[in-house]
Amino acid sequence: MPNPYDAYREKLQQIADVRYSLAVLQWDQETYMPAKSAGTRARQIATLSEVAHNMQTDSALDSLLEKLQEDKNLSEDERKNIELSLYDINQQKKLPGSFVRQMSEAISQSYQFWLDARKQNKFGIFEESLSKLVDLKKQEANYLGYENHLYNALLNQYERGATVAMIDPVFNNIRQPLKELIDEVGKKSQVDDHFLQQHFDKNQQWKFSMQLLKEMQFDFEAGRQDISEHPFTTNFSSEDVRLTTRIDEKDISNMTWSCIHELGHGLYEQGLPAKEYGLPLGEYASLSIHESQSRLWENNVGRSFSFCKYMFPLLKSYFPTEMQKVSVEQFYRSINKVQPSLIRTEADELTYHFHVIIRYELEKKLMENSITVKDIPAYWNGQYKKYLGVDVPDDKRGCLQDVHWSHGSFGYFPTYSLGSLYAAQFFNTASSQLKELQNEIVAGNFAPLLQWLRTNIHQHGRKFTSEQLCERVTGEPLNIDHFMKYARGKYLGIYTP
Amino acid sequence: MPNPYDAYREKLQQIADVRYSLAVLQWDQETYMPAKSAGTRARQIATLSEVAHNMQTDSALDSLLEKLQEDKNLSEDERKNIELSLYDINQQKKLPGSFVRQMSEAISQSYQFWLDARKQNKFGIFEESLSKLVDLKKQEANYLGYENHLYNALLNQYERGATVAMIDPVFNNIRQPLKELIDEVGKKSQVDDHFLQQHFDKNQQWKFSMQLLKEMQFDFEAGRQDISEHPFTTNFSSEDVRLTTRIDEKDISNMTWSCIHELGHGLYEQGLPAKEYGLPLGEYASLSIHESQSRLWENNVGRSFSFCKYMFPLLKSYFPTEMQKVSVEQFYRSINKVQPSLIRTEADELTYHFHVIIRYELEKKLMENSITVKDIPAYWNGQYKKYLGVDVPDDKRGCLQDVHWSHGSFGYFPTYSLGSLYAAQFFNTASSQLKELQNEIVAGNFAPLLQWLRTNIHQHGRKFTSEQLCERVTGEPLNIDHFMKYARGKYLGIYTP
Repeated sequence: MPNPYDAYREKLQQIADVRYSLAVLQWDQETYMPAKSAGTRARQIATLSEVAHNMQTDSALDSLLEKLQEDKNLSEDERKNIELSLYDINQQKKLPGSFVRQMSEAISQSYQFWLDARKQNKFGIFEESLSKLVDLKKQEANYLGYENHLYNALLNQYERGATVAMIDPVFNNIRQPLKELIDEVGKKSQVDDHFLQQHFDKNQQWKFSMQLLKEMQFDFEAGRQDISEHPFTTNFSSEDVRLTTRIDEKDISNMTWSCIHELGHGLYEQGLPAKEYGLPLGEYASLSIHESQSRLWENNVGRSFSFCKYMFPLLKSYFPTEMQKVSVEQFYRSINKVQPSLIRTEADELTYHFHVIIRYELEKKLMENSITVKDIPAYWNGQYKKYLGVDVPDDKRGCLQDVHWSHGSFGYFPTYSLGSLYAAQFFNTASSQLKELQNEIVAGNFAPLLQWLRTNIHQHGRKFTSEQLCERVTGEPLNIDHFMKYARGKYLGIYTP
Repeated sequence: MPNPYDAYREKLQQIADVRYSLAVLQWDQETYMPAKSAGTRARQIATLSEVAHNMQTDSALDSLLEKLQEDKNLSEDERKNIELSLYDINQQKKLPGSFVRQMSEAISQSYQFWLDARKQNKFGIFEESLSKLVDLKKQEANYLGYENHLYNALLNQYERGATVAMIDPVFNNIRQPLKELIDEVGKKSQVDDHFLQQHFDKNQQWKFSMQLLKEMQFDFEAGRQDISEHPFTTNFSSEDVRLTTRIDEKDISNMTWSCIHELGHGLYEQGLPAKEYGLPLGEYASLSIHESQSRLWENNVGRSFSFCKYMFPLLKSYFPTEMQKVSVEQFYRSINKVQPSLIRTEADELTYHFHVIIRYELEKKLMENSITVKDIPAYWNGQYKKYLGVDVPDDKRGCLQDVHWSHGSFGYFPTYSLGSLYAAQFFNTASSQLKELQNEIVAGNFAPLLQWLRTNIHQHGRKFTSEQLCERVTGEPLNIDHFMKYARGKYLGIYTP
């Protein structure tokens, strides 16, 4: 008989084996799978999901956890694993099997309607299935339970502990100063970025991205990069992390910063403790902390002037003709152009948050019944005019742009903004603790920063919540001043002639 | 309640989902997986294997099969599926779980010893673990049951119905005429094939192989080709077939015919009936029939003069300098050079069979205790001298060359030779039914031959045994005369100055 903790670990690791196998199938689907395989791959994925679900809800695991909950001989980390596993399993049990199936079917349908609605550029086509999904999400929230606001149950699914009471003040406090900064920047003469939109050869872009990843400390013995339609990061253990990128030959910045963004996610996964494979402490802390890692590398590092000093000569070596007449100063300005726009994924660092805030407020209103699904396009377009001053010409470039809702993901968007805010706060602390950080970035030496992230964030896995981690690392709770100070310093500098 | 046949099909398809997921993990392991992932991937594969095994031995499946066995309303194909599923499950049940685990551990160990023995070029290192494995295989044969010869139980695992009484006469009858042909050829002046061993650029070879696969009817909407250390074919359904190849820059023939060989396997998989996904009728008939498809394309098509007329100009377009002074006649002779050698996988069409015969006889003797594991090197080297006239310089190039034994595969090798013999017989029938076959091959039109194989072989899946299929397609049982006639005609032609 193995001791109960070993038995628990083995069970969790077997569940992880199936979940990660599922991830391999999904990775293959997005990278290499031939077209005709779509149907059978969908059923292979469905079967593995069911297998994983059955293993997770096995009563033998319950009994083990019950026994281990009383065990006084466990180490602190072991107790934490047990506590988190109990939380996960209890959360899962709140949803009846019949409801999970109903939701999963509604999502499959809704996704098809969303695809069709986008194609035909007509929200009306998506409306009915989205209404059904919103109703189901309300039911889900009731199953999960919540205090104060129904939306809290959904926010909590993506960011444990996140509530309207926590996020409202963050967005309320940042909205005004951010709007003022964007307006101030908008009054200045605009930066010239036309040279980013030349023809940039695919193969050269690929080689450039691979060298960048290598120099930026991605461990290719424990991961790789491939091409997919939409860039993403997945992993099958902390020793097998897969990044993907896409290459737009008409725009060098598209691939470059998406590649650095995914690198940030990938470095986090590679830094999670391998010995905790399959256990909660081997997992990432939260979605917002994951996003903080991608944003930190993409923006705080990747769009800084120090980084441009390192990277621009490298880029120039791959595209000497295209970049011949461009100076590093021009380059730095061009990749930090601020311009209110329609599409979230193409937005700059400043206007980005309004895309998230609009969705957050919209979802909150939907959940509290202060607007209905029918009202979405009008509400959406009104908010884009109000916050960003842009006219939304159609649904495709408006409320149909993101896949999230059709996947049943409500409460997800805030983690994007929280990620940026945490990133600024972490980077501020790192900068004060690593005196030579800027010089090291200029020199292309990223090891000290990575080591700092490993020690302060990555190695802890899911041991701390986002808030606990933030306090531990920076000495204070989430504070938007760090982001605003960073943003003001940077963009007023760029936009001062 | 679904009807029992639908319930049976769904269960089988779910098992297939897991088995094919496992195959995706293995494919990724051999093609793209980063080095550090080896450990976790091994456990992911082990867990999925266990999941599949548990599903296969689920008693609910037993009850369904029992019920369906009595069902008079099933179609002929449905009855065949039930019959084959019952056979498979009964075979599986003959081995106790504890024995399966014991075997699996012995194989893991044995494989490590084999790797080490090969590295150190010393059979002694492998000996003990191989002895253990041979003992276990004897136990396995006893669990499985057999008539007349213990080896029959093992042969039957790879080729249903194969017995010593069936294979002995095949090998006995072919040995003498084949030896005479090889000797006769050996007396003639040898062909010049030095131009096959120039430097052939990797990328050019890759492009050439992709064009070849496309023109030879591989459906890239339902499959792909990648690079791996050892070429193989796997599939995740008949609509997702993965070939791999390897490229040796010092030898163009290495990649070319290995690529065509895998193509033959791949075309077979793509031709299996998609509607029988997960069911026995959706599977290949047997290993020897699978091999007949790869050999038919590799040898009967791919090493023919007609094929050279088609392919050599294409090859020349990729390597104009390297092939500048080579005529299609010289090329044809060079790729059909006969030369007794040490390594099975590098052997020509004629001497190949002796490599198989030696292993077959050796395994038979091991199983009947007429030699022991300790005797293997001496026996091996003696037989190579006797049959092929070559001196085996060391174990690495002798009895340690193949991985099969360390994987616990005893009884596998005969399927290689049977495959060649079936290929010759099938190709003979195809040639008499497709009057324009040679002209079509010259013209690079492979659709008629593929259509013939689809109709006569592929579409039937596992409906017929190798022997039944052979009779159906060619009107007679396996007959070595077809191979010998083909071999004599071809090689005496080449070796007549």
